[in-house]
Amino acid sequence: MRDLGQSAFLRACRGEPVPHTPVWFMRQAGRSLPEYREVRGDVGMLESCLRPDLVFEITMQPVRRYGVDAAVLFSDIVLPLKAAGVDLDIKAGVGPVVAQPVRTAADVASLPPLDPTDVQPVADAVKGLVAELGERPLLGFAGAPFTLASYLVEGGPSRDHVHTKALMYGDEDTWHALAGRLAQIAATFLRVQVEAGATTVQLFDSWAGALSAADYERYVLPHSRTVLESVRAVADVPRIHFGVGTGELLGLMASAGADVVGVDWRVPLDEAVRRLPAGTSVQGNLDPATVFAPWAAVEERARDVLRRGKAAPGHVFNLGHGVLPETDPDVLARLVELVHTESAR
Amino acid sequence: MRDLGQSAFLRACRGEPVPHTPVWFMRQAGRSLPEYREVRGDVGMLESCLRPDLVFEITMQPVRRYGVDAAVLFSDIVLPLKAAGVDLDIKAGVGPVVAQPVRTAADVASLPPLDPTDVQPVADAVKGLVAELGERPLLGFAGAPFTLASYLVEGGPSRDHVHTKALMYGDEDTWHALAGRLAQIAATFLRVQVEAGATTVQLFDSWAGALSAADYERYVLPHSRTVLESVRAVADVPRIHFGVGTGELLGLMASAGADVVGVDWRVPLDEAVRRLPAGTSVQGNLDPATVFAPWAAVEERARDVLRRGKAAPGHVFNLGHGVLPETDPDVLARLVELVHTESAR
Repeated sequence: MRDLGQSAFLRACRGEPVPHTPVWFMRQAGRSLPEYREVRGDVGMLESCLRPDLVFEITMQPVRRYGVDAAVLFSDIVLPLKAAGVDLDIKAGVGPVVAQPVRTAADVASLPPLDPTDVQPVADAVKGLVAELGERPLLGFAGAPFTLASYLVEGGPSRDHVHTKALMYGDEDTWHALAGRLAQIAATFLRVQVEAGATTVQLFDSWAGALSAADYERYVLPHSRTVLESVRAVADVPRIHFGVGTGELLGLMASAGADVVGVDWRVPLDEAVRRLPAGTSVQGNLDPATVFAPWAAVEERARDVLRRGKAAPGHVFNLGHGVLPETDPDVLARLVELVHTESAR
Repeated sequence: MRDLGQSAFLRACRGEPVPHTPVWFMRQAGRSLPEYREVRGDVGMLESCLRPDLVFEITMQPVRRYGVDAAVLFSDIVLPLKAAGVDLDIKAGVGPVVAQPVRTAADVASLPPLDPTDVQPVADAVKGLVAELGERPLLGFAGAPFTLASYLVEGGPSRDHVHTKALMYGDEDTWHALAGRLAQIAATFLRVQVEAGATTVQLFDSWAGALSAADYERYVLPHSRTVLESVRAVADVPRIHFGVGTGELLGLMASAGADVVGVDWRVPLDEAVRRLPAGTSVQGNLDPATVFAPWAAVEERARDVLRRGKAAPGHVFNLGHGVLPETDPDVLARLVELVHTESAR
C-alpha cells in the first residue's frame, strides 16, 4: 500500500499542516510545452488520450520540467463521451464538435452509457503513472455534467449556452434526464481513474459560471453531487471542484461534496474562504495572464496569493484557470520555485 | 426646453416613483431585427454608424416595434476610435480588428485624440432622433476605457486579455497614459451626444468582469470616473454603468459616478442592491438566453426580475446582456408588454 499521507499536496487538500504550499497548474500537461507538441506530432487529440504511452509521457513532462507537487492526467473533458460512443471530435482552433446535438428526450434516451472497459487505456496509463510517480500524487479528472451537457446540447463550444438554458428552463424533466446520464458517465470515468490508483480527483465545471446561484442549485448541483459522492464511495481521495467565474457559486460548489474548491482570480482567496463552509481548502488563483507580465509583477502577485491563501485550512497554489497556450514554460518553472521557497520560510 | 421629467425611464433612473417599470434592451437596435438587416444591406458597420439617415432609422426600428421606454443610439463601441483616426475595422464574425496593436509608450503617444467634429454625423443623428422621439428618452453610449484599451492592445476581441493585463501589471505608467487618452475619447463622444440632446448615457465596460476588484479599482476605476464626471459637467443626465460578470465590482462601478448600475443575470437584483451604495438604481437582468425557452419560463423569470428589482430605489428592466443575434423579436415584444402590465398593477 502506497503511503501518500505525507505529500504536501494531499495534506493541503485535507487542511493539515504542510512543509510548503503545494503547487500544480491546470493544463500543465499539454499545449504550452514544446516537448508536448513534439511527442503529440499529428496524432489526434482524443486518439492521444486513449494511447497509454502518450498519456504517460505527456502527464510526466510537466512533472519533470517544473517539479510540481502533483501530476494531472493528460485527458480531455469530452473523452468519456467519445469513449462511450458519442459521435464527436475535437477540431483544432474550435474545440469539441458534436455530430448530432442532444436536445430532445429521444436524443437523451439514446445517449450511450460509459462502460469502464471503454476507457481501459486510461486505466492502464494511470497504473503506469502511479508506479512512476511514487509519492507524488496523480490527479484524475472529469468534466462536470453541466459542462458536458453544454457541449452536447450546443453541438460545440458556446459562450451563451442558449440551447442548454432553453432546455433547462423549458423542459426540466429532459434536462435532469440528460444531466443524470452525464453524471453517471463522469462518475464512471473518475472511478476508473481512482481504482487504477489516482490519489485525488478534480471535477471541472468550466461553464458553471454562466449560471446564477439559484439555477446552479436547482439544475446542476444535484448531478455534480452524484459524481463526487460516487467517488467517495470508492476511495477516500480528496475531491477538488472547480469552475471559472464562480464567485457566486463557491459555497454551493463546496456543498456538492468537495474537500477543495478551486477559485479563479476574480475573488481573492481570503474572500473565497468567507464564502465556503468551514474546513474547505482552496486552490488557486493567480490570473493566468499574469505570467505574461515582467517577473517583478508575477512575483508580487504570487506572494499576494500565498498570503491570502493562509486564510484557508489548506491551500493548493495554482493559476485561476488553465495555462494559456502561449505561456513561457520558464516563467512557470520560476513560479514553482517561488511558491516552494516563499511558503517554506 | 423639452420636459422629460415625467418619463418612467428617467424617473426610474433617479429613483422616483414610476407609473410602470420602464424597459429597453441592450442591442435592441441592430442585428436581431429583420428590418435592420434590410436597411443595413451591405453597408459596412462603422460606415453605417456615421450615416445619420441609417442611425436614425435603425435607432427608431425597435422603438416602433416594441414600444420600449427608451431608444438607444445605434453605434459601436469602437466608433469613436475609428472616427479619431485609428486604423481599425469590424470584420463580420470576428469583431473589431486593429491594424497596429497599441502596446508601447510610443504607440500610446501617437494615438489621435477625438475632436467633436469627427463625430458630427452622430450629433446630427441624435438631433433628428430627439425631435422624433419627443418625450421618449434617447440613450447615448460609449465603451469604457478598459474595454476600448483591450481592443487596441490585443488588436481585436480577446477572452483572456493577456497583452492588456501584461501592460497593466508590467508598465503601469504606459497603461495609465493609454487609459487616460481613451477616457478623453469616450468623454468627448458622450458629451457630443448629450449636447445634441441625448437624455441619458450608458458607459459599457463589456470586459471589466475579467478583472479582480483590486485591479479594477487601481487600473480602471479612475478613468471610468473621468468619463462619467465629464458628462456630469455638461448636463444633469442619468448615467448608467454596465459590464458583464461584474458581481465583484458593482459597488466600485457605482462609485465611478453612476446613477444606475447595470447587472448581469448572475447576481439577483435584490442582492445587487445590497452591494451598491444607497440610492443607486439598477438595470437588468433577465438572462438573454431565457427568451429562447418557452414563454411560460420567460414569464416566470421576468416576474422574478421585477419582484427583486423592487428592492432598488429605481429599476430599469433589461436583459442581463445584449440581445442575442438569433432572438425572436416577437418574444421581446411580448416581454415589453408583460413588464408594462405586470408592473402597472
